[in-house]
Amino acid sequence: MTTNSVQVIAQQSRAASRQLASASESARNRALAKMAEALESVRQQVLEVNAQEIVKARDEGQSEAMVKRLTIDDKTFDYMLSRLKKVAQLPDPLNRILTGHTNPAGLRVYKKSVPLGVIGIIYESRPNVTTDAAGVCIKSGNAVILRGGSEAIQTNAILTDAMIAGALAAGLPEHAIQIIRTPGHEVVGELLKMDEYIDVLIPRGGKGLIKRIAEGTRIPVIKHYDGICHLYLAADADPEQAVALAVNSKCQSVQVCNALETLLVDSACAAQLLPLLHTAFAENRIELRGCEQTQKLLPGVVPATEEDWHSEYLAPILSVKVVDGIQQAIDHINHYGSGHTDGIVTQSLSLARQFEEQVDSASVMINASTRLSGGGDYGLGSVVGISTDKLHVRGPVGPDELTTYKWVAYGDGHLRG
Amino acid sequence: MTTNSVQVIAQQSRAASRQLASASESARNRALAKMAEALESVRQQVLEVNAQEIVKARDEGQSEAMVKRLTIDDKTFDYMLSRLKKVAQLPDPLNRILTGHTNPAGLRVYKKSVPLGVIGIIYESRPNVTTDAAGVCIKSGNAVILRGGSEAIQTNAILTDAMIAGALAAGLPEHAIQIIRTPGHEVVGELLKMDEYIDVLIPRGGKGLIKRIAEGTRIPVIKHYDGICHLYLAADADPEQAVALAVNSKCQSVQVCNALETLLVDSACAAQLLPLLHTAFAENRIELRGCEQTQKLLPGVVPATEEDWHSEYLAPILSVKVVDGIQQAIDHINHYGSGHTDGIVTQSLSLARQFEEQVDSASVMINASTRLSGGGDYGLGSVVGISTDKLHVRGPVGPDELTTYKWVAYGDGHLRG
Repeated sequence: MTTNSVQVIAQQSRAASRQLASASESARNRALAKMAEALESVRQQVLEVNAQEIVKARDEGQSEAMVKRLTIDDKTFDYMLSRLKKVAQLPDPLNRILTGHTNPAGLRVYKKSVPLGVIGIIYESRPNVTTDAAGVCIKSGNAVILRGGSEAIQTNAILTDAMIAGALAAGLPEHAIQIIRTPGHEVVGELLKMDEYIDVLIPRGGKGLIKRIAEGTRIPVIKHYDGICHLYLAADADPEQAVALAVNSKCQSVQVCNALETLLVDSACAAQLLPLLHTAFAENRIELRGCEQTQKLLPGVVPATEEDWHSEYLAPILSVKVVDGIQQAIDHINHYGSGHTDGIVTQSLSLARQFEEQVDSASVMINASTRLSGGGDYGLGSVVGISTDKLHVRGPVGPDELTTYKWVAYGDGHLRG
Repeated sequence: MTTNSVQVIAQQSRAASRQLASASESARNRALAKMAEALESVRQQVLEVNAQEIVKARDEGQSEAMVKRLTIDDKTFDYMLSRLKKVAQLPDPLNRILTGHTNPAGLRVYKKSVPLGVIGIIYESRPNVTTDAAGVCIKSGNAVILRGGSEAIQTNAILTDAMIAGALAAGLPEHAIQIIRTPGHEVVGELLKMDEYIDVLIPRGGKGLIKRIAEGTRIPVIKHYDGICHLYLAADADPEQAVALAVNSKCQSVQVCNALETLLVDSACAAQLLPLLHTAFAENRIELRGCEQTQKLLPGVVPATEEDWHSEYLAPILSVKVVDGIQQAIDHINHYGSGHTDGIVTQSLSLARQFEEQVDSASVMINASTRLSGGGDYGLGSVVGISTDKLHVRGPVGPDELTTYKWVAYGDGHLRG
């Protein structure tokens, strides 16, 4: 694929985005329904092609974790369709009047949500991103350019073709959804140059991918870096709840961004809680790495180094630190954390309030598992990523977050004096 | 000033921002009042030092336009104080519950506005930015690092010292407001490296300054590029209103970002309107540069080149193009415009609606001067800049736009299943 053809795709998306900006809510929701129907009609084909790509991935010696991410079975397929249907049911993110004002001269001014325009999604392996991303983008009136991993290129192509047909059947422009079908890094390099036509890029994958993209383009990038998540067990934490929350936060799934990486235990309850935690984590085969205090209370625990406090393990390892009071916990989180998801276990409203106010993170959990942070439990229906940025969008990226706004002023010949 | 001292300032601001995040609305508003009081008490000193800096600027051969921007007289000073008082009266941008949801398991989730953290403002000459920026940042609970032009360094220092004293008297942290007092480019270079401590940079000045900063840092930058503003006179435009709006949009002030640069006249009314416009602009000493059609209707008008359609003149020059209908006008604007401010003059609600929907600009004006786009007439009280970005903030940057949000989830031992 030449520069020229990537540019053509980008220009076509820009043109489609102009038309999409006026597409009604019912047209966009009808498109989502038609996309789900069209996908259902290619279900067998998708499963077969996906099975071939899985064989190929195994032949090429890909890891089982990677093969698992690549796999679509009937259940995954049902889930993909259900997400499209769910996003269709969400309130319209567009044309919401966000604020308004009549100036002293009678000029009517309002601020109205509108699509961002053209969104590029660059992702690895998981083919469900193809349908999730297209769904969220169409819901929010954006044209989308998909660029999935080469190991899923055939699966993604069938999924996309079906969605394009569905969107067309509902009267949306032909190029509302596009996918780049050529493998290789070069074509991604070309895409990064399209700042004239693409409004935002969302990379989904490892830190390396995100960094490469963010540093290689002038297009704004919504970034998803580390999730170094903390849970602070306050002095008054209910022991049973504290252990259950710590275990669920760490063990429910260890390879995900909202899994617990560092447990902070108040010195006032450390002697009571640490042995309980030690047993519970041992049962779940989690390696603990402790500060000096932790080592004293749990002899034999691996010592934690400075590096541990900075680590997103994404593995069955947990660093544990004893802290003197909530302020030390908050300071540790703001210093070592990544601003993704951090929680407290306490019965005290004032501690909860202080934690909520002072922890500078996208998600603050009070007596709830860190694993509950995300679009699903926040009621966003479907998301296209999670942002660790502070500007524009923080946390889950759903349809609302793929909008910008315009100011509209209605006058009757109003001049500036 | 060494790297070390810029770093110390940045770290102090970060620490102050942690405290500011919990400062109450009344504490922040009291600080704004105390800042205005403290400024009043140094009024004479400010005027004297400013007068000395004006003499110096003239001695160094600075342009009169630059000297004008640098000048503070009693009236400017009153205006600066009035803006601080106005921003104090605005609704609190913080702790607003933006959306909320209870999940099926009873987890309470809400999205709450919070300060961005530390904001760096890099600006040229105008000392009123010093007080405007500090006011908007304190209102929104952000720590601010100011870096003004070297020609106003003494004036800015006195203004800042007074504001720091005022903020301190209201109980805000000592480093909530800081200014970098060392002249030279080097120190700005150091500031750009402080991505660990600074959340966003807002450059205010020429395109060169903004580009240099945006390309030289990993800190997110709120950018204010071109204002290539258009006014489209539709076929049914009231002739008198059309001429008045075109003249006001262009002539009320030619050197500003929301001044008109290109006038689009519908072919259906061009023969009637162009002669009227020609006379009106001639009276205002505006040079017209016309398309072929315009040249036919107004013999002797300078021909417009392709470059003219891309130009932000900021000067008494106006490009004029005859277009066949609203779609051609919209396409021209979306192609050549800069997405800043674009307007239509029409009596038709359906044309107005189409223009509002399809013009991809921060501000869309219906029967109103392009000069009315901005924080003042939009009811924002005081702004720290205007954004031509689409992400995070589009158009005027007021206190609301200097916030981000966090998700807060209150549970009672809620786990992920």
